[in-house]
Amino acid sequence: MRYGFGVDLGGTTVKIAYFDEHGTMLSKWEIPTVTTGGGQQILPDIAASIKDYMLEHDVESNEIVGIGIGVPGPVDGKGVVNKCVNLGWGVFNISEALSQLTGLNVKAGNDANVAALGEYWKGGGQGCDNMVFVTLGTGVGGGIVIDGNLLHGAHGSGAEIGHLVLNRDETDMCGCGKRGCVEQYCSATGIVRMAYKHLAATDAFSSLRNLEAITCKDIFDAGKAGDAVALEILDNYYALLGEFLADLCCVVNPEAVVLGGGVSKAGKMLIEGTQPYFQKYVFHAASNVRFELASLGNDAGAYGAFKLALDAFA
Amino acid sequence: MRYGFGVDLGGTTVKIAYFDEHGTMLSKWEIPTVTTGGGQQILPDIAASIKDYMLEHDVESNEIVGIGIGVPGPVDGKGVVNKCVNLGWGVFNISEALSQLTGLNVKAGNDANVAALGEYWKGGGQGCDNMVFVTLGTGVGGGIVIDGNLLHGAHGSGAEIGHLVLNRDETDMCGCGKRGCVEQYCSATGIVRMAYKHLAATDAFSSLRNLEAITCKDIFDAGKAGDAVALEILDNYYALLGEFLADLCCVVNPEAVVLGGGVSKAGKMLIEGTQPYFQKYVFHAASNVRFELASLGNDAGAYGAFKLALDAFA
Repeated sequence: MRYGFGVDLGGTTVKIAYFDEHGTMLSKWEIPTVTTGGGQQILPDIAASIKDYMLEHDVESNEIVGIGIGVPGPVDGKGVVNKCVNLGWGVFNISEALSQLTGLNVKAGNDANVAALGEYWKGGGQGCDNMVFVTLGTGVGGGIVIDGNLLHGAHGSGAEIGHLVLNRDETDMCGCGKRGCVEQYCSATGIVRMAYKHLAATDAFSSLRNLEAITCKDIFDAGKAGDAVALEILDNYYALLGEFLADLCCVVNPEAVVLGGGVSKAGKMLIEGTQPYFQKYVFHAASNVRFELASLGNDAGAYGAFKLALDAFA
Repeated sequence: MRYGFGVDLGGTTVKIAYFDEHGTMLSKWEIPTVTTGGGQQILPDIAASIKDYMLEHDVESNEIVGIGIGVPGPVDGKGVVNKCVNLGWGVFNISEALSQLTGLNVKAGNDANVAALGEYWKGGGQGCDNMVFVTLGTGVGGGIVIDGNLLHGAHGSGAEIGHLVLNRDETDMCGCGKRGCVEQYCSATGIVRMAYKHLAATDAFSSLRNLEAITCKDIFDAGKAGDAVALEILDNYYALLGEFLADLCCVVNPEAVVLGGGVSKAGKMLIEGTQPYFQKYVFHAASNVRFELASLGNDAGAYGAFKLALDAFA
């Protein structure tokens, strides 16, 4: 039996997990991400944490297949990171750097793409060699698996699906500087933004008006309770999400769409609301798609990162 | 040196070409596509034509890597065709069937996807391992190359990019039964449809009004001659094509977009008109994209089909 590490590098914490080659997570822990000084301490900290674990548990280097790491920014096929703004990083080869520090094989990928690989391997997308993973959180991100492999893209920016255009006439600006991106409508932030717009445009009664600050959950809860305005907001949301997912499926023709992130906590209600619009907008030959909920939560990145290493070095 | 055949199966003719393993086309010819009787004569005709060629030119079976074939319909990874309406075909394994008839290895793919592989290998996309091929013809089709391999999709319907939604409010119906598809705006037919709508909505002078039936070429020619209405029509076209290509590039992050089909004959004018809108709509991390014109014309399918066989069997 061989083993390895999956590392999910975030802006605040680094999640590290130790796996056997079958993908059983044997241990997991976190260390803080130290972003001061251009983030130069991050990789030495990760290397030290992994070496400590190996020493403590009598793990030899030759038992280790490798380390996989998901990074919050573009990473190309050779492991070159192209600026991770919230880590303070510029352009360098992270695989080579972390490999030098640990003496182990290292394979790197974008964090959202790597999480998609995790959900494909051990989560909601199991058994689907062609799969689209969509996170509906503060933003909209995701990853695409084609014939069992991640779509990294030419410059490590594959599957930046939160920034497809849904509305050419939008006047508000997206975080990316464009106007009308998917993220402005389909994220947890987006549905709240649209709820406020909807409430401002009507005088109709809604329980949402009593709330000091509306959350995504409030909107689904009000809809479940029969609030007519909340149901209109949700219907509009389902239509936009349905078109977005239909567009993705016309490009990729996946077996499954796996939904994660905060909005996906609405679960069955979200899927049942979105599916009719998905079917309206999708091309018939690409319409045979299963909707699944992500099942690995915050561990998806670590699973996917280790799978990346396994695919590269095992 | 080994050799092989690339077959581009269309609704009217079958194009067959003979290649050496480096992709030099040594010979090409056509036979009619006999679609009567549920299209049951099509594969025996192709097999006979290939066997005749081999006999005439003293080619032994062991010199042949295989036959690649592009088919006008969905084909999954195992070679199962899922209804080619204009050939009269239902569901069957075309690779197995043609292999039995010829005694040679056969690999099949969707015709538009296979043409993309041809342009990647020997045409406008050479050297770009991540590439999107878009044909702007009677319809809009295309294919996607990821890390040098075709995106076939789970059910052989990958890259049905003509049916992404560009306009949720469209009232006219697309050939596919939906409303607002890319094909309704960005095809050669689409730009003519939009030109008539534009002309009907204004009284402004335009040389296009003198024409009995407006063609795509007429619109570009009028624009080149400074016709203000034609330039408005083209500007609207560039905006829609720019958004469509930006959406594709946010998903795929390719090195190059290769444009083929009738509209692409407008060449540099088309690319220069579309690029500013593309840059407006694309996510910054996926914006580093070259625009190229397809260069293989009607031979793209045969090149790509042989490459499919080469990748599978060489």
